[in-house]
Amino acid sequence: MSTFLRVDMTNLKVVLEDSPPEYEWLGGRGLTARILNREVPPTSHPLGKHNKIIFAPGLLGGSHFPSSGRLSVGFKSPLTQGIKETNAGGTAAGKLGRLGIKAIILEGQPADTKLYLLKVTKDGATILPADDLAGLTNYATVNKLRQAHGKDVAVISIGAPGEMKMSTATVACTDMDGRPARHAARGGPGAVMGSKRIKAVIIDDTGTKPVGAKNAEALRNLVKEYAKFLDESKGAGLTRAYGTLGGLAWVSDYNHSLPVRNFTSGQFEGASKIGSKSAVAALISQGSKWSHPCMPGCILHCSNVVVDREGRYVTSGLEYETGAMLGANLGIDDIYAIATMGGLSDDYGLDTVEVGATLGLAVDAGLMKFGDSARAMALINEIGQGTTLGRILGQGVAVTARAFGISRVPVVKGQAIPAHDPRVENATGVTYCTSAMGADHTAALVLKRKTTPAEAVEASRQTQINVAIVDSLGLCSNAIMFVAFPMERVTEIFNAQYGSNLSYEDMQEMAKEVLKDERAFNLKAGFAPSADRLPEYCKEEPYPPSNLVFDVPDSEIDSFWDF
Amino acid sequence: MSTFLRVDMTNLKVVLEDSPPEYEWLGGRGLTARILNREVPPTSHPLGKHNKIIFAPGLLGGSHFPSSGRLSVGFKSPLTQGIKETNAGGTAAGKLGRLGIKAIILEGQPADTKLYLLKVTKDGATILPADDLAGLTNYATVNKLRQAHGKDVAVISIGAPGEMKMSTATVACTDMDGRPARHAARGGPGAVMGSKRIKAVIIDDTGTKPVGAKNAEALRNLVKEYAKFLDESKGAGLTRAYGTLGGLAWVSDYNHSLPVRNFTSGQFEGASKIGSKSAVAALISQGSKWSHPCMPGCILHCSNVVVDREGRYVTSGLEYETGAMLGANLGIDDIYAIATMGGLSDDYGLDTVEVGATLGLAVDAGLMKFGDSARAMALINEIGQGTTLGRILGQGVAVTARAFGISRVPVVKGQAIPAHDPRVENATGVTYCTSAMGADHTAALVLKRKTTPAEAVEASRQTQINVAIVDSLGLCSNAIMFVAFPMERVTEIFNAQYGSNLSYEDMQEMAKEVLKDERAFNLKAGFAPSADRLPEYCKEEPYPPSNLVFDVPDSEIDSFWDF
Repeated sequence: MSTFLRVDMTNLKVVLEDSPPEYEWLGGRGLTARILNREVPPTSHPLGKHNKIIFAPGLLGGSHFPSSGRLSVGFKSPLTQGIKETNAGGTAAGKLGRLGIKAIILEGQPADTKLYLLKVTKDGATILPADDLAGLTNYATVNKLRQAHGKDVAVISIGAPGEMKMSTATVACTDMDGRPARHAARGGPGAVMGSKRIKAVIIDDTGTKPVGAKNAEALRNLVKEYAKFLDESKGAGLTRAYGTLGGLAWVSDYNHSLPVRNFTSGQFEGASKIGSKSAVAALISQGSKWSHPCMPGCILHCSNVVVDREGRYVTSGLEYETGAMLGANLGIDDIYAIATMGGLSDDYGLDTVEVGATLGLAVDAGLMKFGDSARAMALINEIGQGTTLGRILGQGVAVTARAFGISRVPVVKGQAIPAHDPRVENATGVTYCTSAMGADHTAALVLKRKTTPAEAVEASRQTQINVAIVDSLGLCSNAIMFVAFPMERVTEIFNAQYGSNLSYEDMQEMAKEVLKDERAFNLKAGFAPSADRLPEYCKEEPYPPSNLVFDVPDSEIDSFWDF
Repeated sequence: MSTFLRVDMTNLKVVLEDSPPEYEWLGGRGLTARILNREVPPTSHPLGKHNKIIFAPGLLGGSHFPSSGRLSVGFKSPLTQGIKETNAGGTAAGKLGRLGIKAIILEGQPADTKLYLLKVTKDGATILPADDLAGLTNYATVNKLRQAHGKDVAVISIGAPGEMKMSTATVACTDMDGRPARHAARGGPGAVMGSKRIKAVIIDDTGTKPVGAKNAEALRNLVKEYAKFLDESKGAGLTRAYGTLGGLAWVSDYNHSLPVRNFTSGQFEGASKIGSKSAVAALISQGSKWSHPCMPGCILHCSNVVVDREGRYVTSGLEYETGAMLGANLGIDDIYAIATMGGLSDDYGLDTVEVGATLGLAVDAGLMKFGDSARAMALINEIGQGTTLGRILGQGVAVTARAFGISRVPVVKGQAIPAHDPRVENATGVTYCTSAMGADHTAALVLKRKTTPAEAVEASRQTQINVAIVDSLGLCSNAIMFVAFPMERVTEIFNAQYGSNLSYEDMQEMAKEVLKDERAFNLKAGFAPSADRLPEYCKEEPYPPSNLVFDVPDSEIDSFWDF
């Protein structure tokens, strides 16, 4: 019941193999990191035959615990040239868990340029032709596949940007409504999937059941405890009511760490219009739905379904990152325009964080003006359609900066700085520097500024360790860490499921190995420790209104790895 | 008489300062590496205010020794993100030597977008407005400046690609005929000069004289000995008669290491038409001139002046690299078309090696067909004019590969593999891996394949050391190393000029420090030793007709630095 599904795209063959015993307690992010370290030459080309893309549910995938259905997608990134794990909600991971599949490993490369599907059921897996899906968007792809394969399948798909091997291309996962709205977005997983010529993976778990816990009663009690915790937590209540988007005005007006107009200000005069309690209330009053789960069993419900003023579906969900990167960072305060851009990005399969940062640079390049949502949408369409300009923008911030000779570039290790400015959030800044993923808030977000550099490093380190635990279990970081459910209790969830008796310290040691695995890959892929740096403007250009700069010294950053 | 001319572009101020005593025996490449290490933060943005671009004659610049007028241009490269030195012939370095200027250091960045000139005379230096030169090509720029400042000045200039900060943009130096035909080409020096908003440097050495040797008689004797050596050397005779281009057919038909059609073959059926004794004889019979010097005092005369069938000037000179990269590598066997592309690249200020490799990839991207010189020329015009497509191609091989999702990329550390395939020339391959410059044949070219990996590493190491000596003296590598003038005698040239008593071993130790300086910068700029690798196709794809692959193991490559 614990297998690797190895898909050899060179020979178009699928093999089910027992996962090695030493991988028993590796899942999700930790598992992808270990496999990549063992199987992918670190200097190989991300779009070449030696790279692999791995889809792995976490160690709790398919279990009875809520919010345990994150799907980890691991690969060598064409965006960063380093190791990458990015994860998404939706229904795929839970189904893989129930199917007993610990990882799907896509490897090799077909000699021809045909497109393929991979279909996975309890009876095995098959590779099917998919040339009829070439160039289709995610929604069009998923609609066709659900018609052909049933409405209850999970689909992991790419749009045209993935086929064109753009580094902003995501891997989309269907949600409970069958919408390809949950994205493993960062680092170009869509490009790597495209390089394997797989348009979509269809997962049909008909005839399976949830993975039972070794200590079922203990797990049941933990589920109850977790539900009670959420009900009693003020933070969880706010998240449930307003989603992540509802907090945007707080990031702007109190934390001052929002990205505004290409990272030139931490406060946006339009914040309350695009991300506040009142903005959410207005959307709801016009037909949008809040408190929507992105995966089965979720009881936090931090997502949403947004419809336009005529009630037509636009996107699910509209998150803080989209509001920040496609809204504030572009000087756009029209929430419906932002939602439309988010939906467009979902449909093409584009990382809204990388695209938002790239369009910020497009202003520098004279390609658009701040606040011009029509032009921003036109540029997203250029990417989706692969025009010559779209080929530049579709490769993200670093390539766009190269093409237009721009020297102020919000990027670390090739990946755009996301929606939390490191000048204010200094521990998040340490994360951007040190994470093997490049600038990535999901590797460890610490909203509140730390007083000293040493505290910033320590906060980033402890948070990165906790995130590595959560990502390896397949738990939702939002549903656990953002609401501050205690990590000691998370350890007990693992113990209940696996019948083990690990301590939180044991879990942390395992998580440290994950971080070290990721770091080891990058050191062998050409990155020196001196690559762990923010762009110089973050150290020199004060960020209004706090007017802070990032002031963690290089030596302090390097001390991150002393563990 | 040994000064740094420090040009602060932030405040538009020029300061002449004494060069520190410990820099006495540092010149050319070695000097630029030391200054960059001391003054430029290795992680700074190449196009930002912290980068510097340094123009330095070699230690023999301005002396009486022939072929000692190479100008070293040092900077952090926007192409590789690492340290870079690229050097050119022409008249600039000799004039700087006679002016007693050891280095011009351009630093800072103006707040506005105006363009400037730097004019250097024996009375000092001034910054002048140059907005009237915006967008002009090198020939147009130089024509205007020679009209305004006299025909005897040397001009160092950039074309529009430099202003647009393209990584293929060169720095052009005028030759003895006042033509901007000698280029410090690789790594994007034109982009860095453009980022400083300097369109051209004008050097007027009126009222100066050559730098006398401490032991003038010894130097006179060495000049005589060198002249006799060239006259008696068969290799020098061939080079003098046919230039570097004349050897192209040998590289193709005997060495099998020519780049043909995007590095898919080492032998070109059109080789004799574009680079052979008979091809050169045909050009000469139609009015072109061979045995032309590129700098004052040269007695090797390996360059040329090519005219079209109507006798109109096309380029000076047409070198092996241009024939290989814009000819064979694009499947083009029309020598006049190649010369025209070379002249066009001179005029725009584009690196023919990087551009040739990039157009090879353009075939992969479906943008042109092999053999279509009209389309190749159109694409060079797209670069020169900065169209959207030109913005991609103008950033070189690595960015073009990103934009079009290409995974077979002839590149090391961001710089295109030049006109010697490393699968055949394995020691040159070790140079491509280990040189801090990225793939660069000028760092150590070893034409003949070595029998074992250890021999390949040793040959690359010894040659890199010798090249570092020659580049630091400002000697022409072609005029010394290619004709195999003994390095012990080169040491004596230095001793005669400086009144010193160094041994060749001493010189080698100094050269090793140069290599280590360069390496140190890169290690601090984010490059791990694992970045010293060729692309995977070089190890896997046999190169016809020899069908060799690059087979120096990684551990052997890493042993390069054991000195």
